[in-house]
Amino acid sequence: MNNKIITISRQFGSGGRTVGRQAAQALGIPCYDQELLEKIAEESGFSKEFIRDRGEHTPHSSWLANAFSDRGPHGLSTQDYLWTIQSQLILELAEKGPCVIVGRCADYILRDKTPCLRAFIHAGLDQRADRIVRVYGQTDEAPVKRLRDKDKRRAAYYRFYTEMEWGDARNYHICLDSGAVGIQRCADIIVELYHAFPQQG
Amino acid sequence: MNNKIITISRQFGSGGRTVGRQAAQALGIPCYDQELLEKIAEESGFSKEFIRDRGEHTPHSSWLANAFSDRGPHGLSTQDYLWTIQSQLILELAEKGPCVIVGRCADYILRDKTPCLRAFIHAGLDQRADRIVRVYGQTDEAPVKRLRDKDKRRAAYYRFYTEMEWGDARNYHICLDSGAVGIQRCADIIVELYHAFPQQG
Repeated sequence: MNNKIITISRQFGSGGRTVGRQAAQALGIPCYDQELLEKIAEESGFSKEFIRDRGEHTPHSSWLANAFSDRGPHGLSTQDYLWTIQSQLILELAEKGPCVIVGRCADYILRDKTPCLRAFIHAGLDQRADRIVRVYGQTDEAPVKRLRDKDKRRAAYYRFYTEMEWGDARNYHICLDSGAVGIQRCADIIVELYHAFPQQG
Repeated sequence: MNNKIITISRQFGSGGRTVGRQAAQALGIPCYDQELLEKIAEESGFSKEFIRDRGEHTPHSSWLANAFSDRGPHGLSTQDYLWTIQSQLILELAEKGPCVIVGRCADYILRDKTPCLRAFIHAGLDQRADRIVRVYGQTDEAPVKRLRDKDKRRAAYYRFYTEMEWGDARNYHICLDSGAVGIQRCADIIVELYHAFPQQG
């Protein structure tokens, strides 16, 4: 498997998804984000909404809570079941051809398999709060609270399945603050890097 | 104070210092690294070697150990005394004009003072081990052990004085893996970013 892949991990509201789409467009390769969600839904039988909202919940860590948690087919917890399907699909997408994959721990799933440029996009809390209200609209919950909850959940989910720290610079080849750098420029830098990646010699 | 500054935080052996020097050269602005060490030495009365080797030690956290530790003038612990001098010097350098400052928590010291592009440079353990043997030569201690010790010390020092996590992507505008990206390209990307930083609107 020698397809060059870009994985984009991102803080909620940082515009990381847009960075991924813009980079993919500039490179003329597919960007998997919604499509990946749809494929996981199709494969697992769960709805897209369920996967989006619950897919990043961490399995219960105590055996007691775990014993009473939801079970999918094969006796796996729902999360472990989704994780298995997601890992398989991501490996298949990477086999198919060069692409951008947003979220879903693709950086970890592809870590040994293929030349994979791992990017992490983040931004300040205020800038993200502005953005989620603009993009997703108001909800009953204050934007900053939504962001903090989502951050905490993603970090826990990532830690659970990868045993690494989400957002630790050392896990990525490039990390960018989209609030300070600008979304379009983030995409430009990643595109430029992709061409020369990995550096030779 | 409106000088645009670049701060480079870096893992030992990642070539972050070279990235800083190359970026400064391309921009025609000074890079403070050794010169900063010399100024701290001059100002504090300690030798450069002492500051380099001991300056990143974290003050003892227990009151007992602290009570018996070295004291500088003013009754401060040696580390707190050096921290005060270092902070003052970094603020003065940033007042003087645009520049690159490598290490010494300059990112934190300048956090509210000036437009400051904060970069973090890291690389894989193997690549750093190769580099430190090439640049600094062999010592009795195995390179990987030297790196791990240095990483641990820098992380503890940074955490002690800034209450933030060293190497957490969210503390920097850009983080780059110099092993995968290449040292020269890291410098190029930072230079490019500097011109348009901070983005307008």
